[in-house]
Amino acid sequence: MLHRPIKHCRNCGAAVVYRIPDDGDTRKRAVCPGCETIHYENPLNVVGTVPYWGDKVLLCKRNIEPGWGKWTLPAGFMELGESTQQGAARETDEEAGARIEMQGLITVMSVPRAGQVHLYYRARLLSDQFNPGHETIEARLFAQDEIPWDEIAFRTVRETLLRFFSDRETGRDTVHNFDVS
Amino acid sequence: MLHRPIKHCRNCGAAVVYRIPDDGDTRKRAVCPGCETIHYENPLNVVGTVPYWGDKVLLCKRNIEPGWGKWTLPAGFMELGESTQQGAARETDEEAGARIEMQGLITVMSVPRAGQVHLYYRARLLSDQFNPGHETIEARLFAQDEIPWDEIAFRTVRETLLRFFSDRETGRDTVHNFDVS
Repeated sequence: MLHRPIKHCRNCGAAVVYRIPDDGDTRKRAVCPGCETIHYENPLNVVGTVPYWGDKVLLCKRNIEPGWGKWTLPAGFMELGESTQQGAARETDEEAGARIEMQGLITVMSVPRAGQVHLYYRARLLSDQFNPGHETIEARLFAQDEIPWDEIAFRTVRETLLRFFSDRETGRDTVHNFDVS
Repeated sequence: MLHRPIKHCRNCGAAVVYRIPDDGDTRKRAVCPGCETIHYENPLNVVGTVPYWGDKVLLCKRNIEPGWGKWTLPAGFMELGESTQQGAARETDEEAGARIEMQGLITVMSVPRAGQVHLYYRARLLSDQFNPGHETIEARLFAQDEIPWDEIAFRTVRETLLRFFSDRETGRDTVHNFDVS
């Protein structure tokens, strides 16, 4: 599911046409026949954390679609004006109300099908008390053998949790860069 | 320089207003008073490579603004439907006409001021013959002590080259994640 097509020009409101611009570009863009604005559509970044407390990780039960009622890591769309780490910290606060110390990158995952890149950070929890926001039904700590693998909302979350636990076993914190179909 | 403000609704063309949506959001968005479309603006990804041939790296002399006439690594905006690696490979082909074997991530840099995230990969050159595109005046190999440090187009490129050479000295390929102001 890529982004919805653009129908009107963001600058002047005229109906756009999809065509290859005359500037040497090779892709069709939404071009305004009135003011000639070219509208680029690009992938979005999703940023989040793997908050851990001893040998447990924090998961959030989603109170919104997609994936209502399933479990996820705190994450969401990166906003303008923030870094990937700041975005990941903001989402962890908004969705779980968790106090963390931000650590290193764990996964950088492209999801071409969705037009997204997902980036997750390790985050040491400073407290085991949480204050979930309206997007979260419940925030709870899970040991590795308690993770509800069949009720994880997104494949990127599942893949990130798997890397987190395998890195724990080997004792090496690495950055995992791969694609998720 | 963040993105230009949205003036009209992409869905129906009506003039938008910037306000906090009624869905629990905390940020002002361009909201359509007609069809209620909410327009989100998010950071863009720039993806590129450090192509190397023995102890030399490939730089491209820019034929476009910003930074016309200065040197850069092959890189550009990630497109919908591709992975970060595919985008980096595409830009390396478009800007330098270089044949490469894609390797690991070297830098993941947030540039909050610009609303961007830049990701660079190590890439082993398979040939020292290049075929630069229209955005490039010249593509040339430089040893570390030949790099025109005062004529590098972007700070992210400079920072990535510094990490590439320091990793070469230590013999360890690591992923460097930091912010560039």
